[in-house]
Amino acid sequence: MSTNAAGSATTTTATAPTPVDYTALARAARAAGRAMQTASLATRNAALTALKQHLATHRDEIARANAANLAEARTMVASGSLSESTFKRLDLMGDKDAKWHALLEGVDDVVGLPDPTNKVTLATKLDDGLELYRVTCPIGVLLIIFEARPEVVVQISALAIKSGNAVILKGGKEASATLRALHAQVQAALVSVNLPRDAVTLIEGRDAVQALLDQDKYIDVVIPRGSASLVRHIKDSTRIPVLGHADGLCSIYVDAEADVDMAARIAVDAKTNYPAACNAAETLLVNEKVVASGGWAKVIAPALLNAGVTLKCDDVTLAALRTNPTTATAITRGQAVPATPEDFDTEFLSLTIAVRVVADVHAAMAHIHDHGSGHTEAIVTANAETAETFLRGVDAAGAYWNASTRFADGFRYGFGAEIGVSTNKTHARGPVGLEGLVIYKYRVVGKGQTVAEYAAGSGGRKYLHEPIVVTEAVQKRFSH
Amino acid sequence: MSTNAAGSATTTTATAPTPVDYTALARAARAAGRAMQTASLATRNAALTALKQHLATHRDEIARANAANLAEARTMVASGSLSESTFKRLDLMGDKDAKWHALLEGVDDVVGLPDPTNKVTLATKLDDGLELYRVTCPIGVLLIIFEARPEVVVQISALAIKSGNAVILKGGKEASATLRALHAQVQAALVSVNLPRDAVTLIEGRDAVQALLDQDKYIDVVIPRGSASLVRHIKDSTRIPVLGHADGLCSIYVDAEADVDMAARIAVDAKTNYPAACNAAETLLVNEKVVASGGWAKVIAPALLNAGVTLKCDDVTLAALRTNPTTATAITRGQAVPATPEDFDTEFLSLTIAVRVVADVHAAMAHIHDHGSGHTEAIVTANAETAETFLRGVDAAGAYWNASTRFADGFRYGFGAEIGVSTNKTHARGPVGLEGLVIYKYRVVGKGQTVAEYAAGSGGRKYLHEPIVVTEAVQKRFSH
Repeated sequence: MSTNAAGSATTTTATAPTPVDYTALARAARAAGRAMQTASLATRNAALTALKQHLATHRDEIARANAANLAEARTMVASGSLSESTFKRLDLMGDKDAKWHALLEGVDDVVGLPDPTNKVTLATKLDDGLELYRVTCPIGVLLIIFEARPEVVVQISALAIKSGNAVILKGGKEASATLRALHAQVQAALVSVNLPRDAVTLIEGRDAVQALLDQDKYIDVVIPRGSASLVRHIKDSTRIPVLGHADGLCSIYVDAEADVDMAARIAVDAKTNYPAACNAAETLLVNEKVVASGGWAKVIAPALLNAGVTLKCDDVTLAALRTNPTTATAITRGQAVPATPEDFDTEFLSLTIAVRVVADVHAAMAHIHDHGSGHTEAIVTANAETAETFLRGVDAAGAYWNASTRFADGFRYGFGAEIGVSTNKTHARGPVGLEGLVIYKYRVVGKGQTVAEYAAGSGGRKYLHEPIVVTEAVQKRFSH
Repeated sequence: MSTNAAGSATTTTATAPTPVDYTALARAARAAGRAMQTASLATRNAALTALKQHLATHRDEIARANAANLAEARTMVASGSLSESTFKRLDLMGDKDAKWHALLEGVDDVVGLPDPTNKVTLATKLDDGLELYRVTCPIGVLLIIFEARPEVVVQISALAIKSGNAVILKGGKEASATLRALHAQVQAALVSVNLPRDAVTLIEGRDAVQALLDQDKYIDVVIPRGSASLVRHIKDSTRIPVLGHADGLCSIYVDAEADVDMAARIAVDAKTNYPAACNAAETLLVNEKVVASGGWAKVIAPALLNAGVTLKCDDVTLAALRTNPTTATAITRGQAVPATPEDFDTEFLSLTIAVRVVADVHAAMAHIHDHGSGHTEAIVTANAETAETFLRGVDAAGAYWNASTRFADGFRYGFGAEIGVSTNKTHARGPVGLEGLVIYKYRVVGKGQTVAEYAAGSGGRKYLHEPIVVTEAVQKRFSH
C-alpha cells in the first residue's frame, strides 16, 4: 500500500461517492506507523517545528475554512439544531486569535517535552555477553474520534508525531472544512521532513468509523474523546483496545474529622469550577457526625447554595436543612429537593449535586464502589489514618485527600499534554500524557547463545539475572 | 454479595444442575478484589506460606483426585480421544513427585518476589502542600482460562494473591477433580489469614466462560493460556481487555554478515529445543549473499537437517540445496520440499521450518511485518549497524540480536514467574511477570486547595511541577 493510495482514499471520502477501501487506509497507516518508529527525535521535533510554521503561514486560508464552518453553524444555532456552546467551541480564531496563538504555542510545548520513546525501563545481565533491555517504543496506530473542537487535529497530531505513532483522526461534521485545512498543513509538515504523510490521516463520516473499528489487525488503540454515549458506543463496537472514560461520576466524602470550611471550599470548587467537566463532583457523601454537628446545614450546604448549586438530598441531609432557617428557604424555593435513587448514578454535568449521609469512611467507599465510575474520589478529613484507609482502599484512577477533584487533569499534573482521561484498569489510568502512547519491546543482545546450553541438570550455563545499572551512557545507546 | 453466596455458587457449578448466577459470582470476585487491594504484603505472603503448607498437608487427598482424573484420561487415550502429551501434562505427581515438589517450591519463590504493588512510580510537587503520587496497585479481577495442566491453579493463585488481585479460574474438564482439590486448599489458605475466599474462584464448563466474558463491569482483564484458537475465540467474545498471544510465529533473519556457524546453532536451538513452544522459530529468512556463498547449503541447512528438521524452501533456497550432494539427498527423501505461500503464515509447532531468501534487512523486516505475529524476531549478523536497524525497526515484543528466540520467557528474563506472553500493543508486551498484574492510581494530597486559585490570569497561585525524589523514606510511606 503506497502513501499516495491512502492519501487519495482519504480525499475520496471527503469529495466523491466512490467507496473508500478502509482496509487499505488502515494498512497504509500501519506502514506509516512503522516508518515513524524509526524516526529520530530530531526528525520528529523538526516535523513539529515545521507544523507550527505551516500553520502560521496558512493562517488566513485556515481562518476562511473556519469562517465557512461557522457561517453554516450559525444557521444551525438559529434553527436550534446546534447548541451555542458547540458553536463557540468551533471557533478556531476566537478571542481575537488568542485561541489560535495558544494552539501554535501548544505545538512548541510538545517540542519541549521529553521523548517518551527509547527509554530503557529495565536492564538485566542474563549471563556474560547476554543482555536484556526493555525499551519504550510507540504503540503503532491510534484511532482518535473526537467532537466539535477542530484544534484537536493539531494537538493530537503533535502528540502522535512526538511519540512516533501514526494516527487516524475523525472529527465532527460541522467542523469538516476547518479539519481539512488543518490536516493539510499537518501532512505538509510531515512531508517536509521526509516523514510519511499517512502518519496522520483524516477520515470523515460515521461509516468510516465503523469500518475502521473492524481493522484490529492494523489499528492498536482507539481513543474516543467526547460524550459518554460516544465512548460506550465505541466500546461496544470493536475488538481494538479502547482508552478512555465513559463517565466521570466523582464523589467527595466529608469525614467526621473534616475541617468543614475546607470541605465547603472543596465541594464548591469541585462542583462549580466547570460543571461540564468529567472531574467535576456529582455526589457529596457527608458523615453522620457532620450532619449532627451542623457542619452540613450551617457551613457546607449554605456555601453550595450560595454558589447556585441545587442539592438533591437523601432524607437525613434534607431534614437537617430544615433545622437552619437559611437552608430551609432553599427547600421552599426548590433549590434543595429530595434525591431519587437514580440521582446517585447520574453525571449531572450542571450545577446540581446529590447528597447522602454515610456512617463512616467504609460506607463512603462502599457507596463509591457501587455508584462511582472510577474516575476521581476525594476525602476531606484531618485524620491521616482515615485518609490512608480511603486513599488505599478506594478503587479509582484518582484518590484525593483534602483537594478538589478538579485537579485530575494532565496539564495540572504537569504532563505538559493530555490525550484524555482513562478509567481503564489496564495500560493507562487517569489523565494520560505522552507516556500513554508508548509500549515497550524487549531487546536481547547475545553472542550466539542457545537455551539448550542453560538447560537444568545439563551441567551447563546458569542465568545470572544481575541488574544492569542504566547510566546515562547506557541510555544514550538507545536514544535516537 | 456475601462470600458464602459465591462460594456456594461455585460448588453448584460442579455438582448440580441449578443455574449459577454468574453476575453474582463476578460481583463477589470484585468485592473480594477490593478487600485484597488493602491487604498488606505480610498478609499476602502469609497466605502463600499457608498455601504451601495446606498443599503439603493434603498431598495424598490431592494425589487421589489426580489419580481419578488420570484413570479416566487413560481410557480416553486408549480410545484416541485424548493425546498422550495431554495425559502427561495432567499428571500432577509425575517424575516420582518431582513435579509436585517443584510446584510447592514455586509458591515459595513467589513469596520471595518483590511486591509489585504500592510502588511510587512518579512523584511531583504541584505546589507547596499539594503533592501528586502515582502508586502501583492491583488491577482488580482477573479471569484466567487455561488448558490441561492442573498446577496452573496453584501458580496463578499464588501470583494473584501476591499482586493483590482476585482471580476467577477455568481449567480443562479432564482435570476437574484435581482442580477442585487444589482450589479447596487455596481457599483454605486465604481464609486462614482472614482474606476473602472469593479472591480465588474456580468455575467449570463452557457456559460459565461465556457468561463471565459478559461481566465487563466486574472483570478487568482476561488471560487465556492455551491454543491459538482458544485465544482468538476469547478475543472475539468479550469487551474485557484480553492479555495474551494467539500465535507465536517467530522468525530468524540470517544477514549477509552473519557468522553462519552461529546462525546454524541459533536456528537449530530455536527450532528444535521445544518445537511446540510459542517462542520456537517457524521461519528462516536467509540473505541472498548467504545463499550465494554456500553458507546456507553447506552449513545452516545441513545443521537443521541433521537435527531432524524438515525444510519448506522457496525456489532460491531449494535450488541451492541441489548444489550440495548432502543436502540434495534431503530433497530426494522429502526432508526438503518446496514451500507453499501458506507455509510462511504457519505456526508449525513441529520440526518443520519455512525458508525464504531475502535481499537485505529491510526485506527481512517487511516479510516479518507481513507474516509475523509480533512475538519474537531474531537477526544474526556481525554488523552492529544492521543489527540496530533491525532491533529498532522490527515491530515485535522481542527483538533479538545473535540469540535464540527461545530465550523469550519470563523465567529466563529473570521475572521469577510468568503469567503468559503478550503480543498486545497496550498494557503488557512479551513475557508478563507480576508487573503485568498491576496498574496504578494517582494520589493527590493537599491542604484544601481548589483549582480556582490556580486559574490563568487570576493573579493567583502557579503550579510548580517540581519532581519529588522518591527516596526510600518516601517509598516506605506507601509500602504496606
